Amino acid sequence: MAGSTYGTSFTVTTWGESHGPAIGTVIDGCPAGLALSEEDIQRFLDRRKPGQNKYTTARNESDKIEILSGVFEGKTTGTPISLTIRNQDQRSRDYGRIKECYRPGHADYTFDAKYGFRDYRGGGRSSGRETIGRVAAGAVASKLLSQLGIRVTAYTKAIGKIEVPESEYDYGCILANPLYMPNNRYAEAAADYLDCCLHNQDSSGGMIECVIDGMPAGIGEPIFGKLDANLARAVMSIGAVKGVEIGDGFSVARATGSSNNDAFYASEGQIAKKTNHAGGILGGISDGSQIILRAAVKPTPSISQEQETVDQNGKNTSLIITGRHDPVIVPRAVVVVESMAAVTVADLLITNLSSRMEYLEQIYQREPHGR
Amino acid sequence: MAGSTYGTSFTVTTWGESHGPAIGTVIDGCPAGLALSEEDIQRFLDRRKPGQNKYTTARNESDKIEILSGVFEGKTTGTPISLTIRNQDQRSRDYGRIKECYRPGHADYTFDAKYGFRDYRGGGRSSGRETIGRVAAGAVASKLLSQLGIRVTAYTKAIGKIEVPESEYDYGCILANPLYMPNNRYAEAAADYLDCCLHNQDSSGGMIECVIDGMPAGIGEPIFGKLDANLARAVMSIGAVKGVEIGDGFSVARATGSSNNDAFYASEGQIAKKTNHAGGILGGISDGSQIILRAAVKPTPSISQEQETVDQNGKNTSLIITGRHDPVIVPRAVVVVESMAAVTVADLLITNLSSRMEYLEQIYQREPHGR
Amino acid sequence: MAGSTYGTSFTVTTWGESHGPAIGTVIDGCPAGLALSEEDIQRFLDRRKPGQNKYTTARNESDKIEILSGVFEGKTTGTPISLTIRNQDQRSRDYGRIKECYRPGHADYTFDAKYGFRDYRGGGRSSGRETIGRVAAGAVASKLLSQLGIRVTAYTKAIGKIEVPESEYDYGCILANPLYMPNNRYAEAAADYLDCCLHNQDSSGGMIECVIDGMPAGIGEPIFGKLDANLARAVMSIGAVKGVEIGDGFSVARATGSSNNDAFYASEGQIAKKTNHAGGILGGISDGSQIILRAAVKPTPSISQEQETVDQNGKNTSLIITGRHDPVIVPRAVVVVESMAAVTVADLLITNLSSRMEYLEQIYQREPHGR
Amino acid sequence: MAGSTYGTSFTVTTWGESHGPAIGTVIDGCPAGLALSEEDIQRFLDRRKPGQNKYTTARNESDKIEILSGVFEGKTTGTPISLTIRNQDQRSRDYGRIKECYRPGHADYTFDAKYGFRDYRGGGRSSGRETIGRVAAGAVASKLLSQLGIRVTAYTKAIGKIEVPESEYDYGCILANPLYMPNNRYAEAAADYLDCCLHNQDSSGGMIECVIDGMPAGIGEPIFGKLDANLARAVMSIGAVKGVEIGDGFSVARATGSSNNDAFYASEGQIAKKTNHAGGILGGISDGSQIILRAAVKPTPSISQEQETVDQNGKNTSLIITGRHDPVIVPRAVVVVESMAAVTVADLLITNLSSRMEYLEQIYQREPHGR
Repeated sequence: MAGSTYGTSFTVTTWGESHGPAIGTVIDGCPAGLALSEEDIQRFLDRRKPGQNKYTTARNESDKIEILSGVFEGKTTGTPISLTIRNQDQRSRDYGRIKECYRPGHADYTFDAKYGFRDYRGGGRSSGRETIGRVAAGAVASKLLSQLGIRVTAYTKAIGKIEVPESEYDYGCILANPLYMPNNRYAEAAADYLDCCLHNQDSSGGMIECVIDGMPAGIGEPIFGKLDANLARAVMSIGAVKGVEIGDGFSVARATGSSNNDAFYASEGQIAKKTNHAGGILGGISDGSQIILRAAVKPTPSISQEQETVDQNGKNTSLIITGRHDPVIVPRAVVVVESMAAVTVADLLITNLSSRMEYLEQIYQREPHGR
Repeated sequence: MAGSTYGTSFTVTTWGESHGPAIGTVIDGCPAGLALSEEDIQRFLDRRKPGQNKYTTARNESDKIEILSGVFEGKTTGTPISLTIRNQDQRSRDYGRIKECYRPGHADYTFDAKYGFRDYRGGGRSSGRETIGRVAAGAVASKLLSQLGIRVTAYTKAIGKIEVPESEYDYGCILANPLYMPNNRYAEAAADYLDCCLHNQDSSGGMIECVIDGMPAGIGEPIFGKLDANLARAVMSIGAVKGVEIGDGFSVARATGSSNNDAFYASEGQIAKKTNHAGGILGGISDGSQIILRAAVKPTPSISQEQETVDQNGKNTSLIITGRHDPVIVPRAVVVVESMAAVTVADLLITNLSSRMEYLEQIYQREPHGR
Repeated sequence: MAGSTYGTSFTVTTWGESHGPAIGTVIDGCPAGLALSEEDIQRFLDRRKPGQNKYTTARNESDKIEILSGVFEGKTTGTPISLTIRNQDQRSRDYGRIKECYRPGHADYTFDAKYGFRDYRGGGRSSGRETIGRVAAGAVASKLLSQLGIRVTAYTKAIGKIEVPESEYDYGCILANPLYMPNNRYAEAAADYLDCCLHNQDSSGGMIECVIDGMPAGIGEPIFGKLDANLARAVMSIGAVKGVEIGDGFSVARATGSSNNDAFYASEGQIAKKTNHAGGILGGISDGSQIILRAAVKPTPSISQEQETVDQNGKNTSLIITGRHDPVIVPRAVVVVESMAAVTVADLLITNLSSRMEYLEQIYQREPHGR
Repeated sequence: MAGSTYGTSFTVTTWGESHGPAIGTVIDGCPAGLALSEEDIQRFLDRRKPGQNKYTTARNESDKIEILSGVFEGKTTGTPISLTIRNQDQRSRDYGRIKECYRPGHADYTFDAKYGFRDYRGGGRSSGRETIGRVAAGAVASKLLSQLGIRVTAYTKAIGKIEVPESEYDYGCILANPLYMPNNRYAEAAADYLDCCLHNQDSSGGMIECVIDGMPAGIGEPIFGKLDANLARAVMSIGAVKGVEIGDGFSVARATGSSNNDAFYASEGQIAKKTNHAGGILGGISDGSQIILRAAVKPTPSISQEQETVDQNGKNTSLIITGRHDPVIVPRAVVVVESMAAVTVADLLITNLSSRMEYLEQIYQREPHGR
């Protein structure tokens, strides 16, 4: 198992290289009867599409998704859903020194160390284009979740030092600025900062936050399949992410129990919590509150400055990466974080169907002989 | 798959409740021929044993490990290794209000929400005692890694605001203070702070750091089986962990590409990096540098103060948790983090054997008919 | 993954060697709320217990099962169920030539070829005692199935040439004769044949049949998780089984479509079939008819005759296996086949919960916040 | 996990419906550095292509394979290999009564029972076209095996009562007759029999045999991952297969131990067996002899005779399936059996790399820092 499949009940297998003929994903385990169209998926993909504004590369790709299997007369059939995008920007080109040198901050060296050679064209399998498969799967998972009243929302929490405080969030404007920040004013400040980075031939890191609303209590498996553990893996598996936290996250290290514990209370037959330091997860299982996670995203490693490195023959050299590069990864990664969170939650919701004998009894008594 | 198994090649399945007859783990996929004794494992378990000092609960348990299978004449046989500890502290007792009330910060409510009822004795499956199985497996993984020249070391980076700066690390004293800090002076300050917490009927969070030395480049699977993604899941699956970061972690959000990229250089035929902001992982694959990760651990949720909560009938109430509780989880979790990291690395090292045709050719040519 | 775990939703991990301290199994994924006692399991184990009659070895073992986790107040909790039996017959003995020679028909040579050495005591991991773990798991799966109205029944179809024709089946007497045949008269004939085998220092093969009643239509996953494919794997994974067939099985090779197809008909709102050549499975999915499978079991390889073989230094030699051996494996394997079938069906029933969106909607609407 | 993935180390995921836009497979876990071209795969696919002779349907498809990922400059890269074939025969047509009636012997009814509805076009996911994905994966596995000196060969053992005895095998003519029989004379007799079936508006079953040569001893995992158990599952997961046997198979039921045991002998430092009743597998692990398996294949269920059945509203009716249908499934299934066997063996060979510490030491000492 070489790790290209994610999930236990709702499984997602991505495949494809940056400059190969196509890129795609296969979803196995999506229940039958979910209404699904190519538009549902395209809408998600368009959020990560390059060339949308001056902070994203102008790769000329339409990234048009095609559903090749698993959907019949507008509904999922319960069989594998194969989703593919043809790569259009495959023209033969001179990869120049990229072919021979290890770009700092990229996976060129580690792929060579692992496999003995690599597909050097546009980063090959380690390219950000691999996330197309994740986002396509995330669109399907999100559609499934919306049927159950669950909504996943990711946005840019910070770019460099420009961080939107929670008190100034306006979810309504996330899609209204090219940086997907929940506050247009901060987005403008961040844009200025990115202009400055570009001017300095440099790039910026940032932070993505993701919240999940409408989550029922009881989802997540108690040991290695904890909801937070799976979310951490899912989000950390996105290329540039270097840290993941849930609820109060790293600040719990300095907290005390009396301030960090969330008191329960009951109101109109519902159990809820007065605060949500836990980010909606206790013992790895959802507690019915909003799920909150944050991911730290490193600065784009491709910068225009000259950098020291070695070539694949082990000779010291320096490298200038030509071409235009995004000064920040964060905005395009927002929908990837949202997608990985949606897939994770869908997977655990389905897995949870097997948690109680009464669920089996309920399903099989109602459907004793199939129909 | 209810999530009690971790790993793809070297798999660990833990089982057992706090107050059941026993607790244990089954390891499947440990290669044959590794020298292994009960002492190898006991040494690890003793590091998480309760009652070792005034900051850990005085549960009277010997926690004596027994190898029930998979080892013959002092060597692993390649078949499942079953490791068990009998619980000795099982006397019937009055669980009082714990049986009916949901302790804030614990998994009582979420277990009920998931399964419809719960084993309320000592937290049942969500008890910290579940980590015994992880530590036992970690001991085996660490033994395997040491054969290959790889060493995993975890320690307490911070308790509350008492954080040991990297410049003052002295790895030699980690085992020399009861808090497993890499600096005895900071450990004393942290001890004073914990006394203060106890006095206030409160508890403290903290931070654990884990480094892995001797790691070959090329380990980790490039997409969902990334080394950092698997480490994140492994560590986040430990009860009280609320955040995980690799290398510079969350500080990359404010960094620039020029400062965050690690330059490569070659020296005596070896490729290395001048800095290690990446924490030893590029594109999810080890780069031959030291692996560095940190985990944020929340304060012990069991505190002696009166807390508001609800009972299982959905009535508002308040709760005082009696008995003695650790004022901090961190010191006992250090060996758990180390163990989960060791299991993760062992698993990916074994998985990596299938990365190249030349490895298959090498093994099967040498061993064409078995011996 | 070294193959000691079976199942995807209801997973069974067996561990233990013939002469190690204990043997056992861990079940992960059993839904919460199933009534389960040690007696439920012991009853199954007693059916494979040695020393019950003159055709089974007189190993002096009580084989007393212990539930170590996953059951609280008589019900499963949804967490792993650990089941263990202490081996009592572990006295140090002289394994003599078994230690050095490869017994024909046994796994001695192949274990050495695989691992470089082996636990030679009583066959180690390849001993029939490994099936204790399977039968314990099968008892739990059977209890679960009985709650849903599904009943798995295995019996001895044939010993040597003594084969009970379907027209003479009397299920009521399966447990009434020591060979578990569904006809006492044939059982007596088979007993005479086995006496003859013993007299000739020889052993006999046989055939086991297993039927599953009350199976709802729609169970099984259509490609690699077909109900028949999983049953085939499950049953072929039992040591001495050399063939598995479903419904008409191998005789379909000589059949024609017109005679082999089962016509559907409807009666009182139920869809059924006029014949059942398919053995209850179409396209890998149950069709609501009785499931029928048969397994061919080879003769006990341990016979008292002198046999030619080689020793582990590759020298030609001959071997007489001393001690008493069962003249036939079949009777003790009956409950193992039944157990593996039960685990397979339970696993696919649980997996099938995720086949339709309407099941998710039904469960999560009814249980929006856990209780 | 809905069962569309097979294998643990070398995993194959198939997707696609008979009349959807395309059909394909994704292989994850193929080691890097295997020379692979589209021709390697096309050659396999051409062996199952329809319309090759009068016994196979004349569907007008070129079935041209395309490698979409995982191969760079003619070698596998270690990343997922995506293989796709566009379906060309997708013209809208009148499916007539097939849309409403359950064809006997097909999966129409069971798909409806499972999912609540079905893609009725050409059988949808349960169509034989699904095996294209298996054969494409089998071609890759076979290429890998051939590098290690292992050769998998399948052929038609019998059609109806026309069975080629082992003494008359001529492997050289398998590809020389349209029925893939290892004897042209028997192939002619079988052809006559099939003409007779066609004349009677009927169809015939048959038997496929598969042998694996060059297999090293020691391959297979001892419990649920036995080589024979995995082969049984792999082969039984092919649509029309109703029985699988290894070596002497079902005839062991009537054998005695003295005749069924294979004596070992040593010659020139090699251990071998005098006979091979076991079919090359002992205790689930290869013993270095030829692996032998047989599969029973049912008659084509689509026959031109009028058949009784029910429609999806549960009304009794009768059905005549129009169009031309193969009078036998066997010849086209030969390469599917061979492919599933090849994938199974490749998977277990790779898994076996983790069986010994000495293998890890050998690989990681030679490659301490990647290259």
